[in-house]
Amino acid sequence: MIKNMTQAEISLHIIKVLKENKKAEFEAILEELQPYDIAKIYEGLPEKHKAKFLLFLKNDLLADLMEELDKDEQLEVLNKLGIEKSSKILDLMDNDDLALLLHELSPEKMDSLLSGMKAEESTAVKDILNYPPETAGRIMTNRFVWIRNYFSVREAVDKLKIFAEFAETINYLYVIDEERKLVGVVSYRDLLLADMDEKINDIMYERVISVLVATDQEVVARTAERYDFLAIPVVDDKNVLVGIVTVDDIIDVVIREANEDIEKLSASGKAIDFDTKIFVAAARRLPWLILLLFIGLISGRIISSFEDTLKQVVALAFFMPMIAGMTGNTGTQSLAVVVRGLISHDIDKGVVTRLIAREFGVGITIGVTCAVLISVIAYIWQGNMILGAVVGCSLFFTLIIGTLAGTIIPLILYRFNVDPAVASGPLITTLNDIFSLMTYFGIASMFLHYLI
Amino acid sequence: MIKNMTQAEISLHIIKVLKENKKAEFEAILEELQPYDIAKIYEGLPEKHKAKFLLFLKNDLLADLMEELDKDEQLEVLNKLGIEKSSKILDLMDNDDLALLLHELSPEKMDSLLSGMKAEESTAVKDILNYPPETAGRIMTNRFVWIRNYFSVREAVDKLKIFAEFAETINYLYVIDEERKLVGVVSYRDLLLADMDEKINDIMYERVISVLVATDQEVVARTAERYDFLAIPVVDDKNVLVGIVTVDDIIDVVIREANEDIEKLSASGKAIDFDTKIFVAAARRLPWLILLLFIGLISGRIISSFEDTLKQVVALAFFMPMIAGMTGNTGTQSLAVVVRGLISHDIDKGVVTRLIAREFGVGITIGVTCAVLISVIAYIWQGNMILGAVVGCSLFFTLIIGTLAGTIIPLILYRFNVDPAVASGPLITTLNDIFSLMTYFGIASMFLHYLI
Repeated sequence: MIKNMTQAEISLHIIKVLKENKKAEFEAILEELQPYDIAKIYEGLPEKHKAKFLLFLKNDLLADLMEELDKDEQLEVLNKLGIEKSSKILDLMDNDDLALLLHELSPEKMDSLLSGMKAEESTAVKDILNYPPETAGRIMTNRFVWIRNYFSVREAVDKLKIFAEFAETINYLYVIDEERKLVGVVSYRDLLLADMDEKINDIMYERVISVLVATDQEVVARTAERYDFLAIPVVDDKNVLVGIVTVDDIIDVVIREANEDIEKLSASGKAIDFDTKIFVAAARRLPWLILLLFIGLISGRIISSFEDTLKQVVALAFFMPMIAGMTGNTGTQSLAVVVRGLISHDIDKGVVTRLIAREFGVGITIGVTCAVLISVIAYIWQGNMILGAVVGCSLFFTLIIGTLAGTIIPLILYRFNVDPAVASGPLITTLNDIFSLMTYFGIASMFLHYLI
Repeated sequence: MIKNMTQAEISLHIIKVLKENKKAEFEAILEELQPYDIAKIYEGLPEKHKAKFLLFLKNDLLADLMEELDKDEQLEVLNKLGIEKSSKILDLMDNDDLALLLHELSPEKMDSLLSGMKAEESTAVKDILNYPPETAGRIMTNRFVWIRNYFSVREAVDKLKIFAEFAETINYLYVIDEERKLVGVVSYRDLLLADMDEKINDIMYERVISVLVATDQEVVARTAERYDFLAIPVVDDKNVLVGIVTVDDIIDVVIREANEDIEKLSASGKAIDFDTKIFVAAARRLPWLILLLFIGLISGRIISSFEDTLKQVVALAFFMPMIAGMTGNTGTQSLAVVVRGLISHDIDKGVVTRLIAREFGVGITIGVTCAVLISVIAYIWQGNMILGAVVGCSLFFTLIIGTLAGTIIPLILYRFNVDPAVASGPLITTLNDIFSLMTYFGIASMFLHYLI
């Protein structure tokens, strides 16, 4: 019915149906829509129609809708639904999405929501909340179907049919033994292709790739990406199957981690998007800026300690922004390569040594090229060959220092289990500012009497 | 057999089996491994064992192996296999992976490889190569199973069984009509749950979300991510089904696009990773650095035009790095928010207006805070209240300018279909350097006789 309608047309149609109280027709329309579309339509509805929209929506679709909304909207929906219906909806939500919602609520609010839920569901969510953030345990779901290895294909399919709602987004059945230990995996495709009387034991794949509950979510994503898996099983330290991470969550992790790297490299502050309020955004950015302000003052302090040199050759100031800027930039270039490389590489001593040697080589190459160029330019501009040599020589050294700092500092942070992107962006820019000014004025002071 | 062995143990075991010429045992081991593991083991083999490894490997696993290797290794394998066997392996590879491999080969090499392949496979690859890079057409595969809407579930399952190899990584069957137009979709799960005699027409989902062949790969990824799809069908402008994009390719797109944003924001040069050679890496970074060198000279030129002011109040130089650094950084912060936001948002006038207003507010908030702070510090340090006021006042204005430049410039680039990350990083830093120095020295010159 709505097959060829645009989203705006569907919205108008839904409003009409809501006004006319046609619940059956409403349900028929909604049945054709994807959760993402339902969420967009809900968000776009005039406020006065939202309550009836929620009232008409079936519970399973309400749970789907919840999973697509952002936090503030989720809380708004729960308020509209009232505590009793809310608990029913929460029962139906994926546990990992639910954990994300509950994570930042006040303990009282969380308790009141959890207490209305089914015991098994609320226990599952509480379990998830016990794992540290950004681990496999935190993003896994318990909504998967397990089978035993002595099952026949027919029994497996029958169990799958019973738990149809459960198994919605997954495409493997995980096989466990009597101790719930993970012993194999069978894909839906294997089931379709197999004979109904075959034993799962004979068709299952035994070398199952799994991750531990405590595994970092970035590693989980990397594993799934390497193996092109649609889901990855999560086990505890006794190899007992406790959950699965699905590919949609893995895509979310990949996007989130990339955004985090960008946030950190650009020191842009945590989680600022288009909808963040002015004072929240300002408050998240200010710490970095104030840090940078003080760091900038260190640079100022260095310059002031060379005040006499600067007073005698004011032209030295003309090249300051160029040298500091170039050094900072070459450091950021190296940093970006290292930070992104660490995501996809397993790091050992050989890799580190080769990388540092490579970047050292790059620093020298870049240093020679830029130094020759600036020496000539400085000489032509200021008509002073010594000044040209001082500027060129300084740039040569600072570019090598900048490149190495951009390479080595993130590797050291990584070695000590600090996320290399965390402090590196501003840290490296700052250190490079300080290094470059000291090198520049140091060299200039040495040649001062030739410069004047 | 190899269930509990580490990868190093498996490698050693494989070398032993290769030495003893036990082909059957070799195949039994390989059957248990994932393509990614096979590739890692192959890469780690001593050179002398590689040829026999390839010789023993079944064709379908060879194709899997190829898909995991990087380009140089792929060409090495093809050379080892010889042209005849190569063509057989290429027949078995996913078309999108094959297109990626062929894309950068010389026309002669490409022709010699294509000419040995099955006509239908080489035609499919050539078709893919005709689509522009970074579009759905370029990353889609033709290895999917289509069914007709009048099929029964039994017929669909039978067809799936015949094309088992084909349908390996997909979990939906796409339904087409007599003109090959896409009319529905059925998941494997739907097939498992349905009665064997039901008609596909009755169980299929009709409102299929699809993308066009010319759709940008970033939009394809965004669509799949929103709907949590495992695959997304690709149609031409007549709604004829021509291919599908699978979730593993979507994850690759997400990672590649994030890396590109980081490369561009940090001006780190295209595609430099841990294995890039020194001179290649240096050559890719130098253009940005040389551009920045000249831009740095513009800053120098501005300072030199205020030489008299600077000569009379050398202390002004002490605050230069801080003001330029802060302005550059606040610009980068805004830029990062905009660049990442553009990926997940549909942009309209309302969004743009709200965003600019928000960032203006953030600029004022940050500006007031930092200006007050630096005024006090500058006064205490240099004992000159006017100097404090000049520095604070300059910082206030430059932070607002920096924030707005970081917001508006990428939006303008986006409006004119230039990737906002392309030029923004260095461009914004540079412009902000110039703006900040002009503002600072402009204000300082106005108050010069109070400063001395």
